[in-house]
Amino acid sequence: MRTVFWQDGTVRLIDQTRLPSEFVILACHDWREVAEAIRTMKLRGAPAIGVAAAYGLALAARQSQAATPAALLADLEDAAAGLRATRPTAVNLAWALERMLRRALHPSPNRGGEGGEVAAIQTALLAEAEQMADEDVATNRRMGAHGATLIPDGARILTHCNTGALATVDYGTALGVMRTVHEQGKRLHVWVDETRPYLQGARLTAWELQQLGIPFTLITDNMAGHFMQRGQVDMVFVGGDRVAANGDTANKIGTYGLAVLAQAHGLPFYVVVPTSTIDLTIPDGAHIPIEERSPEEVTHFRGLRIAPDGVAAAHPAFDVTPQRLITAIVTERGIVRPPLDSNLRAIVEKRP
Amino acid sequence: MRTVFWQDGTVRLIDQTRLPSEFVILACHDWREVAEAIRTMKLRGAPAIGVAAAYGLALAARQSQAATPAALLADLEDAAAGLRATRPTAVNLAWALERMLRRALHPSPNRGGEGGEVAAIQTALLAEAEQMADEDVATNRRMGAHGATLIPDGARILTHCNTGALATVDYGTALGVMRTVHEQGKRLHVWVDETRPYLQGARLTAWELQQLGIPFTLITDNMAGHFMQRGQVDMVFVGGDRVAANGDTANKIGTYGLAVLAQAHGLPFYVVVPTSTIDLTIPDGAHIPIEERSPEEVTHFRGLRIAPDGVAAAHPAFDVTPQRLITAIVTERGIVRPPLDSNLRAIVEKRP
Repeated sequence: MRTVFWQDGTVRLIDQTRLPSEFVILACHDWREVAEAIRTMKLRGAPAIGVAAAYGLALAARQSQAATPAALLADLEDAAAGLRATRPTAVNLAWALERMLRRALHPSPNRGGEGGEVAAIQTALLAEAEQMADEDVATNRRMGAHGATLIPDGARILTHCNTGALATVDYGTALGVMRTVHEQGKRLHVWVDETRPYLQGARLTAWELQQLGIPFTLITDNMAGHFMQRGQVDMVFVGGDRVAANGDTANKIGTYGLAVLAQAHGLPFYVVVPTSTIDLTIPDGAHIPIEERSPEEVTHFRGLRIAPDGVAAAHPAFDVTPQRLITAIVTERGIVRPPLDSNLRAIVEKRP
Repeated sequence: MRTVFWQDGTVRLIDQTRLPSEFVILACHDWREVAEAIRTMKLRGAPAIGVAAAYGLALAARQSQAATPAALLADLEDAAAGLRATRPTAVNLAWALERMLRRALHPSPNRGGEGGEVAAIQTALLAEAEQMADEDVATNRRMGAHGATLIPDGARILTHCNTGALATVDYGTALGVMRTVHEQGKRLHVWVDETRPYLQGARLTAWELQQLGIPFTLITDNMAGHFMQRGQVDMVFVGGDRVAANGDTANKIGTYGLAVLAQAHGLPFYVVVPTSTIDLTIPDGAHIPIEERSPEEVTHFRGLRIAPDGVAAAHPAFDVTPQRLITAIVTERGIVRPPLDSNLRAIVEKRP
């Protein structure tokens, strides 16, 4: 089962806010429902929200009443703006929407076929979204194969947030690497940060690892240093939401602290991202917009208040790990080692 | 209102597991109820559990049916063993019980007065517990005065767990320092780590700061590094549960990670503890027993499961911050700076 997919003219997605207690598939009949699902984190993870937005735009094309390609493109621009505005940090969202809009301008070699130009664009956009979904899975498997070469038998790997099948269309990024290691028959043990405030680690990563049969131990985020100090962690693997041209990486809040701890203990710190997460248009992490989410997501848990009434709370959803703390970045095109600035550019600009 | 006190022949304490949603005072009629309250963290904080255990032993003396001092002392040894076994890390518990048992051996200059020797011991133990409670408050105010000299006007202080009135009989240790600064009319802003899994920061520290009118922002534990990186934290103040002879300090899980982050950002890291928390009998932190609590406290929140069924979780309740990461230790007898090993011994062994 994929995290997000097209079925019967609707975008379907697993509602991740209900996991692990309930497994619910949402059907979105309107691109605005897709946007709302992304905004409210029913679906999250940089690769997953990129593909979901692509499907959302394919849905917007079907919803449009436009009679001409120009009118349809105007509708698509509106929908893309709405989808893009949902979450600012992950670059995959903008990347996916740009790719979809380019495709809308060049729907197919045989444009103007049956149903006319508008229908051709509608068909092309769905095909493009489906292709992006397939590519995501293939990309993740390639990252898994590259990343697995970094992991010796018996490794104890600490990870943060969820970077598994649920963060992508399927298979995962950082967790996909661990999955590959497991499929190769190597032993591993995963330390799973619960990842406050949304608990993606406790709710989603634990759930995925349990299903895969990979041994793990759930910990609160503030225990990571303790287990590193005790010599029980060999390396850290995380995903990423946006990598700047110099290698600075935005990822789920708490990642930066882990990178500092990894360095203090001499542990390798690996980031696993598809090249679509690398944003060469910004020089460094200072240019990555950090999403501020509602403080209520910190003061409440599933509607239950955990702090006194009227308390001020902060909720930056991401932080930026500077490139100097990153040992290597694993992409579908290979492992990028320092100097990250020149090597990232080379791997992104190289023809796949 | 004190966190723990004697009233009408019972030990009363604020049930901190119910805060901030409910304010409930428990009345313990049996020392075993006091032990259970400590074990289940209805009352926590190294100084508070020390005094609660002392009151518990005074209660045990009242409960005893012993007709002779020797029989009473045997009952007291049993009760002390039961109280001591509740939580292994904080040394204040053992310290308080030893002091009470010494007092039982030397109840008063005029021993054997009205009611005989057994009654004299009973009276002496309650007096000793009351004196320890009073001393705790006075000690905290002295630590506050010493620690306040470290804090400039407008400081932005990050703290972990709860070190306020609720962690002591009244006033607090690290939070007591901030309270003194506030009373002195200096401005300050406190970053409050929520402190998973028990949420002492979100539930207790936020509640105390709100009542004191001290400005603060609640954050999840994994946000501390982000705000340090952004230059929004000036210093870290924490309490301690046991300080070894060389200055290594056991404190609530997550403290060690904060100390590593503080050093990486060049921020001072201060520990505030009464001298009763300093254990000169052990050379370093490797000898401090780290309490392992139930994994259910990680996988559940107020009875609500937050991780899949059957998940393995770890729950070390404390970690150890090595002395090299500690800028200074604030005690009621003054501020102890490096070299901590010799300076701690000097301040503990000096006559008060």
